[in-house]
Amino acid sequence: MNAVLLTVGDELLIGQVVNTNAAWLGEHLNTLGVDVVRMVTVGDDIEDIKRELRRGYEVAELVIVTGGLGPTHDDVTREAVAEFFGVDLEFDPEIFARVRERFERKGRTVPESNRTQAMVPRGFTVLPNPVGSAPGLWYAEEVGSSERLIIVLPGVPYEMKYLMLHEALPRLRERKGLRIIAHRTILTTGIGESHIQERIGDLSGMLGPNLRLAYLPGSSGVRLRITAYGNTRAEVDAAIARLESHIRERIERYIYGTKDDTLEAVVGHMLAERGLTISVAESCTGGFVLNRLTNVSGSSAYVVGGIVAYSNQVKIGQLGVSPEVLEEEGAVSETVARQMAAGVRRLLGTNIGISTTGVAGPTGGTPDKPVGTVWIGYADEEGDRAVRLQLAEERILNKELTSTAILDMIRLHLLGLS
Amino acid sequence: MNAVLLTVGDELLIGQVVNTNAAWLGEHLNTLGVDVVRMVTVGDDIEDIKRELRRGYEVAELVIVTGGLGPTHDDVTREAVAEFFGVDLEFDPEIFARVRERFERKGRTVPESNRTQAMVPRGFTVLPNPVGSAPGLWYAEEVGSSERLIIVLPGVPYEMKYLMLHEALPRLRERKGLRIIAHRTILTTGIGESHIQERIGDLSGMLGPNLRLAYLPGSSGVRLRITAYGNTRAEVDAAIARLESHIRERIERYIYGTKDDTLEAVVGHMLAERGLTISVAESCTGGFVLNRLTNVSGSSAYVVGGIVAYSNQVKIGQLGVSPEVLEEEGAVSETVARQMAAGVRRLLGTNIGISTTGVAGPTGGTPDKPVGTVWIGYADEEGDRAVRLQLAEERILNKELTSTAILDMIRLHLLGLS
Repeated sequence: MNAVLLTVGDELLIGQVVNTNAAWLGEHLNTLGVDVVRMVTVGDDIEDIKRELRRGYEVAELVIVTGGLGPTHDDVTREAVAEFFGVDLEFDPEIFARVRERFERKGRTVPESNRTQAMVPRGFTVLPNPVGSAPGLWYAEEVGSSERLIIVLPGVPYEMKYLMLHEALPRLRERKGLRIIAHRTILTTGIGESHIQERIGDLSGMLGPNLRLAYLPGSSGVRLRITAYGNTRAEVDAAIARLESHIRERIERYIYGTKDDTLEAVVGHMLAERGLTISVAESCTGGFVLNRLTNVSGSSAYVVGGIVAYSNQVKIGQLGVSPEVLEEEGAVSETVARQMAAGVRRLLGTNIGISTTGVAGPTGGTPDKPVGTVWIGYADEEGDRAVRLQLAEERILNKELTSTAILDMIRLHLLGLS
Repeated sequence: MNAVLLTVGDELLIGQVVNTNAAWLGEHLNTLGVDVVRMVTVGDDIEDIKRELRRGYEVAELVIVTGGLGPTHDDVTREAVAEFFGVDLEFDPEIFARVRERFERKGRTVPESNRTQAMVPRGFTVLPNPVGSAPGLWYAEEVGSSERLIIVLPGVPYEMKYLMLHEALPRLRERKGLRIIAHRTILTTGIGESHIQERIGDLSGMLGPNLRLAYLPGSSGVRLRITAYGNTRAEVDAAIARLESHIRERIERYIYGTKDDTLEAVVGHMLAERGLTISVAESCTGGFVLNRLTNVSGSSAYVVGGIVAYSNQVKIGQLGVSPEVLEEEGAVSETVARQMAAGVRRLLGTNIGISTTGVAGPTGGTPDKPVGTVWIGYADEEGDRAVRLQLAEERILNKELTSTAILDMIRLHLLGLS
């Protein structure tokens, strides 16, 4: 089953509001096996809405419209939908009574303009909205041998979600025999998109219309998304498992998790499981590594703390970095990274100490150490070592990339892979 | 001038990625006076892309396409655009050389698949991309008396933004005579939306179709966006200035900046100007305050460093917090916040020391100190003090809100307003 999403609102076109509704609807419909084939945003204009409804039904049986159900004059979705289906708008006293009650509960009287929110296109089913004043609408129409289904929802995200989850989706599931679709997202880091492709090799024998693979790069690494379609759950699960194990065999060391896992949570879980504690000495990342580690609930079990050593004075005074090494090799150097990691480990008495020192940018680069030159250090009871990275040109991106690299360094160490 | 945005990517349709590009583009085009009349998202499919290009030019002179420029087989935007305009794709050795250079700088060899990123539709202008591997494209074609303009950009947000700001927008401004619209965003913190509204008072005499005010709340505070329309620059500037000064008179102390200012940059600028240094002792924020401070380029001039004291052991051993106070009042208390701020200031020898200690959540709350209870401390040569906050229930939001509150505490201190 195909669907088109139509989100209505001038505020979306001028970028005042990010369209999170579309992503949320896309994800939930997809899980149900409905393919969203297009998402369209138009302003609060009757003709634009009618045109996109028409175009929507050219490729999809279901159109979901959100937004434009408010009480003000620029909310015209109700009117546009009624005109498109060629029916009148009728006043529904029950809806208005509920709206009035909502206002009165807050000690306010209902404005006359809210009457428009009680207007319903004739023949449409009202989806009651206990969390706001605009109800949703549901309508199905036979056109020859096919059907046109419409779901109209308010644009306020929590109202839209409430009505979708409690009213629209159950109706949809009940009404339609929907095919099965499943996803699996594999999270990698430390390897680029094209190198993954090279290692995985030619998949043309495996991939096809019922099994797809997408590469989604980001600052934490490349996510690989497998999508499978089929008639039974067993069939799609088997296809996904086959492709996943093919991928895992080839790039296992780069895979840190699946789905919504984060590298900091994966690493944190490994530390907690082994009863290890960690401390961090940060220069170029300025607290970002500690911030990521402590974003994980329960991280106080293994994060003891850290030193943000932005100045050389703190590197020397707190972490015991040698002034001579700073002088001779510079703050961005292998020895300093190693001394920082070992120093914070000793100072805070943890099992593991890690460090970052680099040229985050945009200024401060030299021919030898251009912007993006970073050393990350790792110390444990067996000793210390450091690795040089050559990253990007943008300061905040460099902090992100460095933090990902050092978190991955911990992961690989704990797995004995480095 | 009308524009249609076309964002391409299966990941958008299944809701894996929220389409922030569309909002960003909408906002920036709007500022320039370009009306975005439709935003469309389709999957990685040549025919879908071509169809939406055709429909786009039915209502707009400009179509901006983002996404689908990667090196893998599912990236088909380049091909679709070339087919739509009826031109061949040609290999551009210069682009490939730059891509190869980017790989080699990182000590990697460029994979063969990246050659596709150097393919350019004949006659198109290449917009060089120094921050990624896919360049943008620009093309203008006369059709009868009108024109078809296309801008093709990568989907990775920071690459898209870079190319838009540095390449596409300047070309667009130069080429077209555009009507005048101007925005002014005033950034506030420490005051809620409804309290701002109460203080500003009734604006119905000032606002109208040519002068608008929007309230945009977020975790850093409420942004107030003034928008003015007019025929001359002088006219819109005067209208904005009038409304801005009305607002400033009423809520001056809460305003920390305008436009893209960040609280950390504003505070950093104040510190740098006065030649003051700062250090931070963080517990519940776990490095986030230091991270924000060091996101500012040039922050090494005033950020000496800090201690992330996640465990009591670090609070006592590094910061000199009294074990008796920890025992009697608990880590989340006024005295601990004050001792942490004074301790880090003394330890790192800075003019100012600040601190955070609280229950970030989601667990760890007690009846006395529920989740969201936070103390922030401030120490300088005149002494130390702390303020209690009662924030939210969500861990990461609490880190954000706490960091905003402590940064604003510095600002108000330096201004003599606290």
